[in-house]
Amino acid sequence: MTYQVAVAGASGYAGGEVLRILADHPQLEVVAASAHSQAGESITAVHPHLTAYGDRRFCETTPEALSGADLVIMTLPHGQSAALAAQLPADLKVVDLGADHRLEDAAAWEAYYPGPHAGAWTYGLPELAGQREAIAASNRVAATGCYAVATILALRPLLDAGIADPSDVVVVAASGTSGAGNSPKKNLLASEVIGSMSPYKVGAHQHVPEIKQATGATSLSMTPLLAPMPRGIISTVTARPAGDVTAADVRAALSKAYDGEHFVHLLAEGAWPATASTYGTNAVQVQGTVDRDSGRIIVTAAIDNLGKGAAGQVVQCANLMLGLPEAAGLTVNGVAP
Amino acid sequence: MTYQVAVAGASGYAGGEVLRILADHPQLEVVAASAHSQAGESITAVHPHLTAYGDRRFCETTPEALSGADLVIMTLPHGQSAALAAQLPADLKVVDLGADHRLEDAAAWEAYYPGPHAGAWTYGLPELAGQREAIAASNRVAATGCYAVATILALRPLLDAGIADPSDVVVVAASGTSGAGNSPKKNLLASEVIGSMSPYKVGAHQHVPEIKQATGATSLSMTPLLAPMPRGIISTVTARPAGDVTAADVRAALSKAYDGEHFVHLLAEGAWPATASTYGTNAVQVQGTVDRDSGRIIVTAAIDNLGKGAAGQVVQCANLMLGLPEAAGLTVNGVAP
Amino acid sequence: MTYQVAVAGASGYAGGEVLRILADHPQLEVVAASAHSQAGESITAVHPHLTAYGDRRFCETTPEALSGADLVIMTLPHGQSAALAAQLPADLKVVDLGADHRLEDAAAWEAYYPGPHAGAWTYGLPELAGQREAIAASNRVAATGCYAVATILALRPLLDAGIADPSDVVVVAASGTSGAGNSPKKNLLASEVIGSMSPYKVGAHQHVPEIKQATGATSLSMTPLLAPMPRGIISTVTARPAGDVTAADVRAALSKAYDGEHFVHLLAEGAWPATASTYGTNAVQVQGTVDRDSGRIIVTAAIDNLGKGAAGQVVQCANLMLGLPEAAGLTVNGVAP
Amino acid sequence: MTYQVAVAGASGYAGGEVLRILADHPQLEVVAASAHSQAGESITAVHPHLTAYGDRRFCETTPEALSGADLVIMTLPHGQSAALAAQLPADLKVVDLGADHRLEDAAAWEAYYPGPHAGAWTYGLPELAGQREAIAASNRVAATGCYAVATILALRPLLDAGIADPSDVVVVAASGTSGAGNSPKKNLLASEVIGSMSPYKVGAHQHVPEIKQATGATSLSMTPLLAPMPRGIISTVTARPAGDVTAADVRAALSKAYDGEHFVHLLAEGAWPATASTYGTNAVQVQGTVDRDSGRIIVTAAIDNLGKGAAGQVVQCANLMLGLPEAAGLTVNGVAP
Repeated sequence: MTYQVAVAGASGYAGGEVLRILADHPQLEVVAASAHSQAGESITAVHPHLTAYGDRRFCETTPEALSGADLVIMTLPHGQSAALAAQLPADLKVVDLGADHRLEDAAAWEAYYPGPHAGAWTYGLPELAGQREAIAASNRVAATGCYAVATILALRPLLDAGIADPSDVVVVAASGTSGAGNSPKKNLLASEVIGSMSPYKVGAHQHVPEIKQATGATSLSMTPLLAPMPRGIISTVTARPAGDVTAADVRAALSKAYDGEHFVHLLAEGAWPATASTYGTNAVQVQGTVDRDSGRIIVTAAIDNLGKGAAGQVVQCANLMLGLPEAAGLTVNGVAP
Repeated sequence: MTYQVAVAGASGYAGGEVLRILADHPQLEVVAASAHSQAGESITAVHPHLTAYGDRRFCETTPEALSGADLVIMTLPHGQSAALAAQLPADLKVVDLGADHRLEDAAAWEAYYPGPHAGAWTYGLPELAGQREAIAASNRVAATGCYAVATILALRPLLDAGIADPSDVVVVAASGTSGAGNSPKKNLLASEVIGSMSPYKVGAHQHVPEIKQATGATSLSMTPLLAPMPRGIISTVTARPAGDVTAADVRAALSKAYDGEHFVHLLAEGAWPATASTYGTNAVQVQGTVDRDSGRIIVTAAIDNLGKGAAGQVVQCANLMLGLPEAAGLTVNGVAP
Repeated sequence: MTYQVAVAGASGYAGGEVLRILADHPQLEVVAASAHSQAGESITAVHPHLTAYGDRRFCETTPEALSGADLVIMTLPHGQSAALAAQLPADLKVVDLGADHRLEDAAAWEAYYPGPHAGAWTYGLPELAGQREAIAASNRVAATGCYAVATILALRPLLDAGIADPSDVVVVAASGTSGAGNSPKKNLLASEVIGSMSPYKVGAHQHVPEIKQATGATSLSMTPLLAPMPRGIISTVTARPAGDVTAADVRAALSKAYDGEHFVHLLAEGAWPATASTYGTNAVQVQGTVDRDSGRIIVTAAIDNLGKGAAGQVVQCANLMLGLPEAAGLTVNGVAP
Repeated sequence: MTYQVAVAGASGYAGGEVLRILADHPQLEVVAASAHSQAGESITAVHPHLTAYGDRRFCETTPEALSGADLVIMTLPHGQSAALAAQLPADLKVVDLGADHRLEDAAAWEAYYPGPHAGAWTYGLPELAGQREAIAASNRVAATGCYAVATILALRPLLDAGIADPSDVVVVAASGTSGAGNSPKKNLLASEVIGSMSPYKVGAHQHVPEIKQATGATSLSMTPLLAPMPRGIISTVTARPAGDVTAADVRAALSKAYDGEHFVHLLAEGAWPATASTYGTNAVQVQGTVDRDSGRIIVTAAIDNLGKGAAGQVVQCANLMLGLPEAAGLTVNGVAP
């Protein structure tokens, strides 16, 4: 059974990655890929790597263009999905990669994002307890933020197992540049980025409320850094131990959470995640230990920010919502070296 | 119908890429992946990105381990495939990524390679006239060299169309580092490679006789350069024009050769190949023009050295040899950005 | 004796590199650094690496701001230097990094550049025969193009020695991204550049007439490629041999040209140039051989495009014009790894 | 006044960087550069970027070869400096870049390093209170570890100002590859590193006792990560606030510590450190704030791991020990882009 998908806002990197995944998806076909300023342009002119799209062109982002599909994926600039979704039939399945519908608490939204709170949709992280079923039953799913998903998957099992203190969680995460999008900005030029690393949005990143909501952490500091690579996020999460906690306890908590999970992999003891191992995939690599000096629990998670951090996550949710095999069209074998 | 494949010498980058492609191939399954010094080791310990291989281990590279398969892919260190193939049943299909069986002329072999000439197998480049059928009918196929395939695909159409002089062809090609393999060598350390480019094997690269054999070029200079990226080859091929040749003539020759070809794409006029567009794929991007000052024809071709330059090519040949759809398990949509 | 230098157009990468070199120059001090849209801005806000500039700000690019100096260095956007120079006193020494005054032949200028030919100044490449003295005696010097200088230094000795044919020279050169400047453009984003190489301005680069003028080549094809590194140019130059030419003849020609030259180094036999070896310097590495199959002479030259390819060259010329030691403030030790 | 320096163990990256800095140092000249397995080899064969070293060769690492100098810099593999220093005259000034003599507490040494504790020398970080004078008066100085110096400079001012809790400090730091040396290892191959980030020595890095000793921190977790760049360290240090602490308090503490310091720069408010800004220099960029959710103090410091993290630090100490201007031969202007 094949389903039809429309991708709204397909001219950016996340939208392009959705188009790439769907091009080879056995049961989903793209019936419309829309853009705003690039409506009417050739898809391969904007995404020269998407050879299979041949002569196809972006259409305009209108409810009409999207409503013929079985499911709409939104990879729009921030702040636009609420208004667009409101114009779509309520029974048309929508997965939104924007932040607009992730947070339940209006106050948390207003503290970190511009504009009014658009309300909460089903949170699109299937690996969280209960979410797989909720997503499958939902018509409105808000997919996760990139830093957020890596951090949540690292942290949640520790809190669920009761081995970590929910306060004073410390997160430091590095991301490749595609997470910043393709608008030309000086600080994103190759000449500025290659051979350098630098922090940004220090102590104030908008993914913090999302991480707290999804894990139960009560206070969390976050420092993101820009890394000289096109893709990948490595999130280093440290939490204070609740009582005496050993490295074995940490691995046990991660194992309990992820044994049987297709996309999230606890590595063999002693092996640490590498973003390249998840390159081009929807996979997540995790590993944890206890710091020998302070006793802090340290868990690191590696993802592809365009994979599990964006387009992969969206397609995983779409598969669930359409009743398809959850891993359809999604690989766990990274493109490495 | 599923066929069984054995991969001999699967612990290197090319072998790892074969394993990656086959993991998601709908009709081929890996029944044995062999290694030499790493026989017995976990596949994911050597290739941490190949998550789907779970607990599987490399076996030893022996005829017994390989003979149970329908087809054997050899990604061995140079000089080893002839001896191994000689021990396999003649009716067992073999695709060799080594150079040992590419050249027809023993003198050409001896001029560029150590050891005796092992004889010629069917040359594994399906896009050359007649090769598709020859490969499909053959039990012994020698897949192409990485620089060679990019250069041949750029040059051959010019000679076939009679618009280029077969003498004094000039090739300058840059490659990412995975083409040099994973043996630890100082000059391949990230600290030596990142932020730098340098030529090597200048004017003496072993792919020259292969290129001449496959294109009909009568004299050809070649300068390879190492580039600070993990994958990708961009080959710049210049040839003297035979008579008055325009850019339109060049594009027409490329178009004639590649219209209808699934993996080789002549870009729209004015668009030039980028290796990232072929990243992780079996695709080839080509474009050509005429130099305004000298009249030389210039054609550039971009590939993934592990894709069309190695593992992708091998799987494309295997598909033909087993009567499967030629593009089974092979994508043309690059992992980009 | 200290001299005062004004830098016009100092907010770009080349201007920034001039400021960097002059900050530590024992005999030159920067009295004015001008910019256009960034006039009034803090220098370190635009060039965060230039710590020694403290609170200094860009001034406006006016004749008044520049005329107080002993020498003016122009690193303006293309097409602006002629008009500005015309407003400066004739006896005020000027070194221009723009292309405006490099070419002697108006027809050559009009064939490759927009706007009218501004006339020719003294060509700023001291290593060419006679140029050192001409530069030292001149008040108006046009510094070289980046690809041009690497290519000229590789090619000129072959023609001077009479071992190469001046026609049908073939050049393929790769450059790091800083050569493209810091205007935000999508194709220069890190996400587009990292992990990829692609050609541009194929067969039509504007440095061709400059190379021909400086070497005597009569026809020359050129293919530039963008490489995933911030700095560096490696130019591969091939020329047909004039008679029987050996690799030893090639090295002898290069040796004759460069023995005794401080900045241009013929490497030991068998060692090939690497751009990282020239990183942050005014040095040039060269090496040559003869292609075994075609007999073509192949010479490769590595530079730092912001070093000998721009700011280093400019300061070298300024030193000569002010009667200072030619290497003052300029190193030959690359920042590597 | 010129002094003579011998560099022991000069064939690695840190030793090479010492040679580079000293080549252009106005008052220090290298009289001997020693190596072990590469004794007798040409310096430029091992360090092709060190053009100014011409035909000079490494000598053997013997007390005799070193004793003729005014000062010896040791950049040996770990564990070797104690034995060598013991064979040198007590009044021969020595700066050691190895870890052997950094720690005062034998138990701390034995907990993290192999072999016996060699005793403590004067700790080579001039910016710490009292160290400048101590170094200048000492004949035996132990220069700092690379991650350690960036972390110490970020953290110490907070503890000195009494605004941070000395327990439960959390450090996450990323480093370029040159910090891992030039021994060929598979995990340091460009094919493994480019496009990827991964943590290592998680929660167990040997710089922890050094950081605690130099700052007064009582418990500290540390996660290092390998980044795809040749040079640079960015250390993100978080500490719990002691009482109500604002971002202004943090900046005031950093300002108090570093106003007037030549090499350590507190950036303008809102500007965050970038490793490229320190590339090739002895400079340090710092910035701090308070996390809005948790109240944790966050300070980030960027250095060049071969600069202030190794060779730059060593030369800064040597200048002090020889009574030279502290910044002689050392720049603060990064080689960027």
